[in-house]
Amino acid sequence: MTDLPSQISTQVYFIRHGIAAERGVYHDDSQRPLVEKGRLKTAKIAQRLMELGLEFNTLLTSPFIRATQTSELLCQTGLAEKYQIFEPLAPGGNLEHWLYWLITWQSVKRPTLALVGHEPDLSNWAQQLVHGDNHHQWVLKKAGIIGLEVPDGQVAIGHSQLFWLAPPRLIL
Amino acid sequence: MTDLPSQISTQVYFIRHGIAAERGVYHDDSQRPLVEKGRLKTAKIAQRLMELGLEFNTLLTSPFIRATQTSELLCQTGLAEKYQIFEPLAPGGNLEHWLYWLITWQSVKRPTLALVGHEPDLSNWAQQLVHGDNHHQWVLKKAGIIGLEVPDGQVAIGHSQLFWLAPPRLIL
Repeated sequence: MTDLPSQISTQVYFIRHGIAAERGVYHDDSQRPLVEKGRLKTAKIAQRLMELGLEFNTLLTSPFIRATQTSELLCQTGLAEKYQIFEPLAPGGNLEHWLYWLITWQSVKRPTLALVGHEPDLSNWAQQLVHGDNHHQWVLKKAGIIGLEVPDGQVAIGHSQLFWLAPPRLIL
Repeated sequence: MTDLPSQISTQVYFIRHGIAAERGVYHDDSQRPLVEKGRLKTAKIAQRLMELGLEFNTLLTSPFIRATQTSELLCQTGLAEKYQIFEPLAPGGNLEHWLYWLITWQSVKRPTLALVGHEPDLSNWAQQLVHGDNHHQWVLKKAGIIGLEVPDGQVAIGHSQLFWLAPPRLIL
């Protein structure tokens, strides 16, 4: 016997990658790494999230270097065991693709999930999940976080709840 | 010569009152005061906001005791010089009434404003300002804060930006 969809709910943390090398310095944008300041700030954020008692059952990341390095730092702190490359989190990625993944993932009842990626995609996805539309009106800073309570993936669009939206300066 | 409306923008902080006496203990709901835990947590939040460099040019508050006491604590820390009772911030209050007030206030170009009040009104107002509609999907805890960048009051609905939504545990 499986639970009814309405009983499935997941805390999803949308985490933007830390401060990276300037756009244009690398020919291939996917190769831009975090700069030292970005690494330090991201590590501090990770430490603070641990202190708040967070733990991610799964951490999906954009394949871009600045995102995988951010994910690596989150894992090193112990927030997640490992990270998993998820292509739809690359810039311009696809929300429906992730929702389809979510339905399967939620069926095994793991309660917390982190997505590490890029703007404006992350805040756009979050706005669609909460409001069913996207006004491009949420500001997600580098290494900033949005927290949503997302119900069953089949009805997630327009039915999720926003409980966090914070830049690093507020978290640290 | 006055500025064009598009050049006017205000940071508005929606602050929910701290933890108050249980509903029903007081015959008149407007008289419920903050409890000791609510006073302490609100004072800590105020201190942290000061450390973040915040300063409110004007602080409007619901006339209810738990809101005015919260506002008093914010003023004691130095976040605002004084607070001003604003009837439309009472429970069930009126967003349009405040928007009308805002247009006049913005004409003198003060950049930061705090509103102390109640749920679900505060998060509903904020959702309308950002998305032009209200899905009741934002969670604002007691002594929690929503931060919006609100353009000229005449076009504020659906055109404001969300930059903070945080419960006390994230701020402290």
